[in-house]
Amino acid sequence: MTLAHHATPGFGLDHLPYGSFSHSSGDPSLGVRVGDVVIDLRAAAKAGLVPAECDAPNLNRLLAAAPATWSQTRTAVKELVERSTDAAGLIAPLEAATLHLPIDVADYVDFYSSESHATNVGMMFRPDSPPLLPNWKHLPVGYHGRAGTIVVSGTPISRPQGQRREPGGGVGFGPSNKLDVELEMAVVLGNPTQLGEAVPIEHAADHIFGIGLLNDWSARDIQAWEYVPLGPFLGKSFATTLSAWITPMPALEAFRVSGPAQDPAPLPYLAAGGPWAFDLELDVALSTEAMRNAGVPAATIATANFRDMYWTMAQQLAHMTVNGATVRPGDVYASGTISGPEPGTFGSLLELTWNGRDAIELPDGTSRTFLEAGDEVVLSGRGRAAGTTLELGRAAGTIIG
Amino acid sequence: MTLAHHATPGFGLDHLPYGSFSHSSGDPSLGVRVGDVVIDLRAAAKAGLVPAECDAPNLNRLLAAAPATWSQTRTAVKELVERSTDAAGLIAPLEAATLHLPIDVADYVDFYSSESHATNVGMMFRPDSPPLLPNWKHLPVGYHGRAGTIVVSGTPISRPQGQRREPGGGVGFGPSNKLDVELEMAVVLGNPTQLGEAVPIEHAADHIFGIGLLNDWSARDIQAWEYVPLGPFLGKSFATTLSAWITPMPALEAFRVSGPAQDPAPLPYLAAGGPWAFDLELDVALSTEAMRNAGVPAATIATANFRDMYWTMAQQLAHMTVNGATVRPGDVYASGTISGPEPGTFGSLLELTWNGRDAIELPDGTSRTFLEAGDEVVLSGRGRAAGTTLELGRAAGTIIG
Repeated sequence: MTLAHHATPGFGLDHLPYGSFSHSSGDPSLGVRVGDVVIDLRAAAKAGLVPAECDAPNLNRLLAAAPATWSQTRTAVKELVERSTDAAGLIAPLEAATLHLPIDVADYVDFYSSESHATNVGMMFRPDSPPLLPNWKHLPVGYHGRAGTIVVSGTPISRPQGQRREPGGGVGFGPSNKLDVELEMAVVLGNPTQLGEAVPIEHAADHIFGIGLLNDWSARDIQAWEYVPLGPFLGKSFATTLSAWITPMPALEAFRVSGPAQDPAPLPYLAAGGPWAFDLELDVALSTEAMRNAGVPAATIATANFRDMYWTMAQQLAHMTVNGATVRPGDVYASGTISGPEPGTFGSLLELTWNGRDAIELPDGTSRTFLEAGDEVVLSGRGRAAGTTLELGRAAGTIIG
Repeated sequence: MTLAHHATPGFGLDHLPYGSFSHSSGDPSLGVRVGDVVIDLRAAAKAGLVPAECDAPNLNRLLAAAPATWSQTRTAVKELVERSTDAAGLIAPLEAATLHLPIDVADYVDFYSSESHATNVGMMFRPDSPPLLPNWKHLPVGYHGRAGTIVVSGTPISRPQGQRREPGGGVGFGPSNKLDVELEMAVVLGNPTQLGEAVPIEHAADHIFGIGLLNDWSARDIQAWEYVPLGPFLGKSFATTLSAWITPMPALEAFRVSGPAQDPAPLPYLAAGGPWAFDLELDVALSTEAMRNAGVPAATIATANFRDMYWTMAQQLAHMTVNGATVRPGDVYASGTISGPEPGTFGSLLELTWNGRDAIELPDGTSRTFLEAGDEVVLSGRGRAAGTTLELGRAAGTIIG
């Protein structure tokens, strides 16, 4: 028997995503997923089979190393998978593992880089003005979020409380009535820089370790009242779900494509850098508690493609550091809601229901404008290329209360 | 000789602020400042003289403990200072120490809680509307900043580059032409909470460890172009200076006062909590390189008082967590620019020069609208009460380029 035997579609030898796992009584270990098993890289490092940076509870120690070490690790893991004897004592079934956040998140930035999403939001909230603000096509608009409330896929999400403007004009307080999802892609950074040192766009690949799916849960009523003039705060900071598996960039080469044309041409620090879009099909699935109890499959409420984003992850990194801000191991930035141009491709309920105007009908006979107690949302995504499929780790969460 | 002998005004036995220091070849240690010496708490913990949580490079391990441990530590340090024999091997002259950031910063939030500051900014940037936005008196407006670029007092500040709107309407790029300061107070948190668990305002004291001065350096030209609709980003994230010394809350009791009346009455989760303002006199001093070379003292360009803030640090904490966001050891939040009602009490050059209209004359015959290369800015502050003075650690930085 070889480890390759365990490879299942989407998690084959060309993928090998990283995560953090533990068994009932043990400490967390860095691991790599192959099909339905996980390889213990911490144990592998102690045995000298992979670089010492893998002797860690999660990805951060590897992220602190140089990209050459990232490559050595991937090569060593591939060799390990192909040599069944060495790997024998290092594998465990995925179903017996508890998955943890794959990184200690340093800083978290959320961008706003889908033209369709920004246009939709502008049309809803500023109906009398052009939907895109004047800066939008000149720079990737973004803001910092709360790193401490990023949670691993599967963590239950408590409905946040907060202030909101009531329809009558007064100020109310209570559990959010407009709890929403945002389909996003997270980028994980490593290979730290010094303060004052920008990352030129042509060096972006030296710092971008990998990607994962991210749900930027949003309380629209709290957000709408609080966000002027300094941006979203409590409407976002209650929880953000990150997939348990981080897909390293070399696994994505088969899906690399050019993104949309950019007009006006970006300033030089945001220009070129090669093709940095990725042809990854994404979807948002929703199930109510009643649907799950009845064995009814989740409803796909939106599908989108990551390749449609206007600003690329390389441009986002070059912009984020052009003022001299550092990169630290474990920094994460998210793409912003990924929406395509058609209604069925919108990555938030805000857009799918047009701020609650058009309810979504579900298979159990109920309908949704925003999320209700017991609703589970699962973000998933995949790349398909000649002869290969890569399945991104899911970002899932169920609403409590 | 007793350690009390070293006490100098402002850093006496009633103060005892915490920091992180090292000598030429050693690793950083948690320390306490008394006058012109620093006590090595790491060594004191190894000797069993203070709680084990002090055996650390900085404050984070103590912040992860409960407030009872914070009290035990302060009591133990006071006893140590009063017993000269035990302390003898643990003290070092401050001038021989290198000071580091006193905490590993977890999340960083910046509030906007001075009514005068928010009014001034509103008058400048939205001259045709009421200066305060509708939400301002209902909640402490705030946003997340970049934790990774918080630096210790004394760290040189590189002028950031970035995009800006040019006067002719085009989009330009280059070093900021409007580099500014913001006089703020930082609050350091500990005693962590669980996700979904709000901190009620009456429990705020269980999580607020102490305070320090903070300079929220701001590039106004970058900020003005980028900040809609998601708030400040690169105009702030290049650097934020925190004082090397964190003053624990028990040292501030002599200066605790009631803040301004609040109208409308805050919602219940923001109400009461006792007096949470502090009578601390603050000032902003600026010196050019020419002034320092000529031995000319720095010019005080603004004085303010922390007691004038509309929203208190207890209200800010209750608000920041009401949605269930966690408190982690090392979380920091800042007050927002501290401005009083009179022109000489404004805590930023933006306000002091009314966005560059009114230059400030300096003793060397030059003038300033915004910061120039070689300018040093020092924030300082003190409390005066019957028979005692407490001097906050300074937040200083010099502009490079």
